[in-house]
Amino acid sequence: MNTNPARGMRDFLPADIRKRNYVINIIKEVYEKYGFEPLETPSVENLETLTGKYGEEGSQLMFKILKRGEKLQEELAEGKIKSENELTDLALRYDLTVPLARVVANYRNELPKFFKRYQIQPVWRADRPARGRYREFYQCDVDAIGSSSMIVEAELISAISEILERLGFDDFVIRLNHRKVLYDILKKYEVPSDKYSDALVVIDKLDKISKDNAYKEFINRGIEKNSADQLLKLYEDSLNVWNTGVEMNHVLMGSILPINLETLGKLNKLLNYAQNPKLMIFPFLARGLSYYTGAIFEVVLTKGDFSGSIAGGGRYDGLIGMFGKEQIPAVGFSIGLERIIYVMEERGMFPEDLTANSADVMITVWNEETAGESLKLASELRAEGLRVLIYPEADKLGKQFKYADSLNIPFVCVLGETELAENKVALKNLKSGEQEKIERNKLSKNNFFAN
Amino acid sequence: MNTNPARGMRDFLPADIRKRNYVINIIKEVYEKYGFEPLETPSVENLETLTGKYGEEGSQLMFKILKRGEKLQEELAEGKIKSENELTDLALRYDLTVPLARVVANYRNELPKFFKRYQIQPVWRADRPARGRYREFYQCDVDAIGSSSMIVEAELISAISEILERLGFDDFVIRLNHRKVLYDILKKYEVPSDKYSDALVVIDKLDKISKDNAYKEFINRGIEKNSADQLLKLYEDSLNVWNTGVEMNHVLMGSILPINLETLGKLNKLLNYAQNPKLMIFPFLARGLSYYTGAIFEVVLTKGDFSGSIAGGGRYDGLIGMFGKEQIPAVGFSIGLERIIYVMEERGMFPEDLTANSADVMITVWNEETAGESLKLASELRAEGLRVLIYPEADKLGKQFKYADSLNIPFVCVLGETELAENKVALKNLKSGEQEKIERNKLSKNNFFAN
Repeated sequence: MNTNPARGMRDFLPADIRKRNYVINIIKEVYEKYGFEPLETPSVENLETLTGKYGEEGSQLMFKILKRGEKLQEELAEGKIKSENELTDLALRYDLTVPLARVVANYRNELPKFFKRYQIQPVWRADRPARGRYREFYQCDVDAIGSSSMIVEAELISAISEILERLGFDDFVIRLNHRKVLYDILKKYEVPSDKYSDALVVIDKLDKISKDNAYKEFINRGIEKNSADQLLKLYEDSLNVWNTGVEMNHVLMGSILPINLETLGKLNKLLNYAQNPKLMIFPFLARGLSYYTGAIFEVVLTKGDFSGSIAGGGRYDGLIGMFGKEQIPAVGFSIGLERIIYVMEERGMFPEDLTANSADVMITVWNEETAGESLKLASELRAEGLRVLIYPEADKLGKQFKYADSLNIPFVCVLGETELAENKVALKNLKSGEQEKIERNKLSKNNFFAN
Repeated sequence: MNTNPARGMRDFLPADIRKRNYVINIIKEVYEKYGFEPLETPSVENLETLTGKYGEEGSQLMFKILKRGEKLQEELAEGKIKSENELTDLALRYDLTVPLARVVANYRNELPKFFKRYQIQPVWRADRPARGRYREFYQCDVDAIGSSSMIVEAELISAISEILERLGFDDFVIRLNHRKVLYDILKKYEVPSDKYSDALVVIDKLDKISKDNAYKEFINRGIEKNSADQLLKLYEDSLNVWNTGVEMNHVLMGSILPINLETLGKLNKLLNYAQNPKLMIFPFLARGLSYYTGAIFEVVLTKGDFSGSIAGGGRYDGLIGMFGKEQIPAVGFSIGLERIIYVMEERGMFPEDLTANSADVMITVWNEETAGESLKLASELRAEGLRVLIYPEADKLGKQFKYADSLNIPFVCVLGETELAENKVALKNLKSGEQEKIERNKLSKNNFFAN
C-alpha cells in the first residue's frame, strides 16, 4: 500500500507546522495592526465562478470535481457523456482573488465600504511538481477594496515591508511600476497599441534573459527594430541608474523615463505617501496578470541565489465588476508563503527554540498503581501553565529518561514509590544532569522550569 | 452571475472567523499543554488511500477529482470510458483519522514512539446540506499513537474536559463505554455473535427512539424476543441509576451490568486514572464506527435542546495496521467544531469584545497634501502596538467620523491643517463624545487608548 501523500502534495509534520505558523502569525499580526480583517472562503467553488478568470493555463491546471450521484453512472454506462464539461460542476480554489471578488459582490451591504481583508489559505494547481512548486500551496493575500486613493497603495507597501522586516529579511527591495509608465514608454517608442501585449511579455523578462535574446524576441513578436533598440537602450540606462543606488527614483523620473507629466505625478505621489527607502521604480515590471490597472509591485531579494519574487501585487479596478453590477476599485498584495519559508530555511532565519520540543517537562510512570498519581501531578503542573508530557506506560526508568531526551524535553519529574511516600518529586535537569528532591507543592513554573 | 458559495459550503466573514479562531485557539492551547503536536495533511488524497475505509456511505459521499490531461478528453470523445473509476484518481479528505494512519505508517522512523498529534482541518462530504450540516466542515482531532495503556485514555478525557470548561460549557457529560461491556452484555443475554452488529445498531440509538420502536427493530433484525426484553430492561435499570446521579458509576458496575471481572477491572482502572466527575458509564454507547476496539466516548450536553454529541472518540488498535506492516495501538478524540460553535452562538457564550471592531483608532485624512502626515501618524501609533485604520481618502470630516462609528472604532485622531501646524492631534472618544488636543509625541497606547 502506497503511504505517500498524493503527487505534488505535502504532509506537514510538527516541526514543519511550527515554522509555517511562525511565519503566518507574523503576517496576521501585522495585517491586523493595519486594520485588515480575516476572511475565509470555501476550498471548493462552483466551476462557473472560476471559468474564464485565469486564461487557458488556468483552465488546464484547475482541479475539477466529479459530479455525484447515480445519474452520472448511468449516463457513463450508456456512453452518453462525450466531454469533460458534462462530468464536473465544482473545482478547487485556484487563487484567493477571484473568491474575494465573488464575496465582495455577494455581501456588498454587509461589508464596510472600504473593506480591508487578509486571507491565508491553500490553493490548488495541477502544475508539474518541481523544487519549490507544489500542487497544494498557501497564498497570503491582503486586499483593500473600495478606494481609488493611493493612500491604500502606501499602506500596503508599509505592511509588506513591516512583515518582511519582522521575519528578518534585510535585503528586499520593492519594485514599483505603473501601467501608465509602460504605456507612455510604448507610445513614445512608437510601438503600435495592438503590439502592446507582445512587447510587455518581453519587457517583463528583460532581467532574466540576455540582451541578444531579448532583441530577437522583440523582432519575432513583430516589434519594429527601432522600437526594440530604444526599449533596450532605456533598460540599460535604467540599470545604470539602479546600480548607482542613490536617489535613483528621482534620476529615473527626472531624466531617464520618457513619461508624461500625469504619470510622473502619480509616481511622485505614491513615493511621497509611502516614504519607504525600499521602494524602487523598476520601469520594466509588467507582471503577467492582465487585470492590473494602476500601480504594480514585486518584492525581490537582492542577496543569495534565490531569483524570483517573494511577493507581488497591484491595483485592479476592473475585476470585482465582473461579479456584480458595480465597478469597485481595489488594490492587493500576495505573499508567497512557500517561497518565504524556503528562503528562511536556506538562510537559517527561524528562531532556534521554535522546534525545540513538545513539552517543558515529562513525568515518569513508576507502575500501574502509581500512574494515577503521575496523572494528578501532570494536572497540577499544567495548571501552572506548563506543557507537560506523561510517559504513557509503566516502564523501566532508564527507558523513560532516554525517551524524554530523544524529544529534547529539558526536565523529567520522577514519581516513584519513595517520592510518593515523602510527598516529593525527584526533578532531573537533562541538560546539566543534576537531580534534586523537591516538595511536591513547591514545584511551580517559576521555581524550577525557568527558560 | 451567481455569487453564492457552492452548495453546502460557507464564506466566513471577519466576525465569523474571529469566533472560529477563538474556539480553535483554546483547543490548540490545551492540546499543546498536554504535549500534543500539530500535524497537517493535504486536502487531496490518492483515491486508493481512502477507498474501502468508510463503508458504502463514505464512497457515495466522497468528493472525487477528475483526472487531468488530454488523454481523458480523447477517451471520452471516443466513448471509451464506461465507469467512474476510469475518470478519477484523487479525492478530497473525508476525515482526519485515515490520513493520520497513512502518515504514521509513512514516517514511522521520524516520529516519536508515542506520537501525540492534533489536527484541525476541514473535511468534505457530499451530504445533503441541512441546518448545521455542511459539505465543508472542520474536525478537531487529537490522537495518541503507540501505547496500549489506559493512561492515554485518561489524558484525552482530561484534555477534552479542560477545553470544554475553558469554552464555558458547564453541562457536559462524557459518556464512557467499552467494547467489552457491549460484548459481555450481548453474550449474557444470548445474542448470537453473528447478530452482534445488528443488535449494536439498535443499542446505539436507544436514547433516541421509543421503547416500542426499539423492541420492533430488535425483532426485525432477528434478535430473539427474550434477548430484546432483557436488553430493554437493562436500559431502563441503567437509566434509573443514571437519574439518581450519585455514585452511579459504582452502582452500575456493582449491581446492574452483567459484565465479567476483567471488563469491570478495565472500567475501574480508567475511572481511577481519570478522576473526572463528568465521566459517566453509559453501557449502550456503541458509536457507528466499527474500528473501535476498546474504550469508547461521547460528549453530550444535558441542558437546552441540542441533542447529539459535540465530541467523541475511542481506542482503535487495528486501523493503523491497515497501512503498514505493524499493528500500532491508538486512541483518538474528535471535537465537532461546527456543533460547538452552533451551541455557543445559541447560548451567547462568545466574549463580547471578540467581534467589537477591527481597529483601536482611526486617523482622518484632511486633504491630499496632508495624507502623507496621516500615514506617518499611523506608523507611529502602530509602532506603539495599536491597531490603526486610516481613512483611505480625503473626504468630509463628518463622513469620516460616521464611518469610524459604523465600524465601532472607539477613537478618531483628527489631523487637520491647524493640528499639523501646532504639531498636535485632536483625539475624539466616540463613546463619550469628548475631544481634546494632544501633543503628537505624547500620544501613546497607555496614555489615551486604554479602556
